[in-house]
Amino acid sequence: MIPRERIMGIARETFRSFGFAPIDTPALELLEVLSGKGSDETDRQLYKFTDNGGRNVGMRFDLTVPLARFAAQHISKLSTPFKRYHIAPVWRGENTQAGRYREFVQCDFDTIGTLSVVADIEMIVVIDSLMRAIGFDRFTIRVNNRAVLTGLLEHLGLVEKATPMLRSLDKLPKIGRGATIQEMVDVAGVSAEQAEAVIAMAQCSERMSGDNAASYDATFAKLLEVTGGNETAKNGIERLRETVNGAIAAGVDPKRLQLDVSIARGLDYYTGVIVETFLDDLPSIGSVCSGGRYDNLAGLFTKQHLPGIGASLGLDRLLAAMQQLELLPTAATPAPVLIAFFDSERQNDYLRMATELRRQGIACEMYPEPKKLGAQLKYADDKGFQIALIAGKDEWTAGKVQVKDLRNKVSIEAVYSHDSPSGLVEAVRSMLNQSEGHLLA
Amino acid sequence: MIPRERIMGIARETFRSFGFAPIDTPALELLEVLSGKGSDETDRQLYKFTDNGGRNVGMRFDLTVPLARFAAQHISKLSTPFKRYHIAPVWRGENTQAGRYREFVQCDFDTIGTLSVVADIEMIVVIDSLMRAIGFDRFTIRVNNRAVLTGLLEHLGLVEKATPMLRSLDKLPKIGRGATIQEMVDVAGVSAEQAEAVIAMAQCSERMSGDNAASYDATFAKLLEVTGGNETAKNGIERLRETVNGAIAAGVDPKRLQLDVSIARGLDYYTGVIVETFLDDLPSIGSVCSGGRYDNLAGLFTKQHLPGIGASLGLDRLLAAMQQLELLPTAATPAPVLIAFFDSERQNDYLRMATELRRQGIACEMYPEPKKLGAQLKYADDKGFQIALIAGKDEWTAGKVQVKDLRNKVSIEAVYSHDSPSGLVEAVRSMLNQSEGHLLA
Repeated sequence: MIPRERIMGIARETFRSFGFAPIDTPALELLEVLSGKGSDETDRQLYKFTDNGGRNVGMRFDLTVPLARFAAQHISKLSTPFKRYHIAPVWRGENTQAGRYREFVQCDFDTIGTLSVVADIEMIVVIDSLMRAIGFDRFTIRVNNRAVLTGLLEHLGLVEKATPMLRSLDKLPKIGRGATIQEMVDVAGVSAEQAEAVIAMAQCSERMSGDNAASYDATFAKLLEVTGGNETAKNGIERLRETVNGAIAAGVDPKRLQLDVSIARGLDYYTGVIVETFLDDLPSIGSVCSGGRYDNLAGLFTKQHLPGIGASLGLDRLLAAMQQLELLPTAATPAPVLIAFFDSERQNDYLRMATELRRQGIACEMYPEPKKLGAQLKYADDKGFQIALIAGKDEWTAGKVQVKDLRNKVSIEAVYSHDSPSGLVEAVRSMLNQSEGHLLA
Repeated sequence: MIPRERIMGIARETFRSFGFAPIDTPALELLEVLSGKGSDETDRQLYKFTDNGGRNVGMRFDLTVPLARFAAQHISKLSTPFKRYHIAPVWRGENTQAGRYREFVQCDFDTIGTLSVVADIEMIVVIDSLMRAIGFDRFTIRVNNRAVLTGLLEHLGLVEKATPMLRSLDKLPKIGRGATIQEMVDVAGVSAEQAEAVIAMAQCSERMSGDNAASYDATFAKLLEVTGGNETAKNGIERLRETVNGAIAAGVDPKRLQLDVSIARGLDYYTGVIVETFLDDLPSIGSVCSGGRYDNLAGLFTKQHLPGIGASLGLDRLLAAMQQLELLPTAATPAPVLIAFFDSERQNDYLRMATELRRQGIACEMYPEPKKLGAQLKYADDKGFQIALIAGKDEWTAGKVQVKDLRNKVSIEAVYSHDSPSGLVEAVRSMLNQSEGHLLA
């Protein structure tokens, strides 16, 4: 929970710094709001029951359906663009496995009510800022625009087969080229040549080599050629160019951007830019932050057309990755300093010392009982404290405190009295600054 | 949600600074964990159902029962003292009213596994730190120790009537002295004299007048007299003295402490110190942060004896109070600055300006479309932005930005270029510093 909360805190700060405002919605929604809004699978996995008031209700399975309900209900009172974030648990009664739980937290941010490319760009900038604020340096944001794929399908006369085609395409990284072509032929009923054309285009994946979207020019030209001058594809490519250049202007390091025409992400839903975010040191864990532009958020709840764009940080997946990469602190305490309670006559003095450290921004815990020092230091080790402060009768008399580094067991002596705590504060700070530097430590 | 999240963030920071670690537990618990653990009322209000796996489950109605279940299950792996906080929603199917909802957030902190008075003192220091960090100056922490009341009941030979007596006593502020005595006589079956003795003692309520617990000496002497030398009462008074002196040594301003023998708070449960926290400017809203020491947290789940102490911030009640006291900001954006999108040729320049402000810690939003300035300023007003930054063709050419204070409509001009944003940053900072100073603004 310590790294979970820190990441959620960083996400909140990042979203706010772009003007996204928090909302919350109830865990329970009327069943009619939730049913039929996701897939057959989410319907099956729904936790639902009849409440004491006879209402059929369910526990939300994502934060998008509640946002759609909320937007449909309140949009007349909300100025657009309506920018919201929502960090909250959702529930799915599925079979659990590593990184998949029946209750898990989603961190969503969305901008509703604008078609502007500025919102597309901003989504990428938010993801970049968020990943860097968490402490990542090596990650790649893969960018696509659904219009490119749509344009190709239009050009090939396969628009009506878009859904099965793109579902098959999503499986490409897993099942490989041959099996994907076979599935497209079998399920979507296209020719092998058509399937090959789609896959050939989707396999365009290119990391940025220069400092603006011109480094994609050769690929863009190839995409234009493959799509035979189709207008939809052309607009998609132009929009991609503008999106990428905007993100770089806003400070995204070009080395973190990759054009990837294969990413489709449930294309029934997305209509414009699509992004996925991969850790360079663990790409196999999948995208840790994904999203895109959609045409009509609240279509199921209102006639008003509400376009939007947003993405979601996969908190549990990111934490699983960080654990695998050994980027997580193991301490079971959020406070680095334990004040040993040594001389029972000095109870109030230890309490005051703790207050003085906290006033200087140093989180610390006072051991509550004057037990043997060994027991207190064992507690400190078990919990992962970094420093123990030890003052017995002699130290109090001499105006000194032992500052013990629990990692290397080295102690130094610091001058301390209630009226001038700065010697102790400086000693603790300097010892903490030598810490190991886990992300989020 | 903006002030809600800020208070929750302050609570997290405060709890952590004392070494409390976050835990989370699932919203759903097995029904057998929840049933019969609260009152008849919480049983009736439980949201419960049978899940797809045939398990009878319920949604937690507080955070204490899940803590008890968690502690019973894991205490062998947790070092004690185990200090945890838990900020999460709970659900009760009750009739809603102002400040009472079917889903609401509790902010609990508890220390499990120690009987030390240091933990009693720390609870008061945490509450004081939390209230001050939120921004309150005028509040009172009322302190009692259940042992004082227990001692009196022992002295009067009424121990077996403790539950109905104290339930009646809890009603004293609402129904008055006469009705409380009548109820004690009718329900608990005590004599009018006995009822009067209990009430007379409970009415001891005294704000601290000196700078340590000696200012209570006259009251303590009276309590000792009334309880006729009873040992339980004597120990309770000594413990109160130590608790109050420790809190003051740890930095709690004595003017914020009040001895109040009447507070009982469901005395079946609490066994030692009890506290309630009142806003001096709105005491009628009730206690906004309450807690105390209990003997046996997990008795229903394990034979191991787990004493503990903790308190809970009533987030919804506190927000209701802050709204009534006009201490809440009204802005619907967490970002104070809106960058108007004015010159469509400069899209990437506005994006870069936004990034530079954020890098300096200034949260800002760029309007996503080059609409008419009037529409953008209306949006800024609707959302409660404090500052609009306006740069058109001429400003960009001249290397300047208009910084408009949206509260008093005064504009100043700041020098700005991507390479030297400091003039703009300083202008924005200085304008923000003149803001109205709502708590949490």
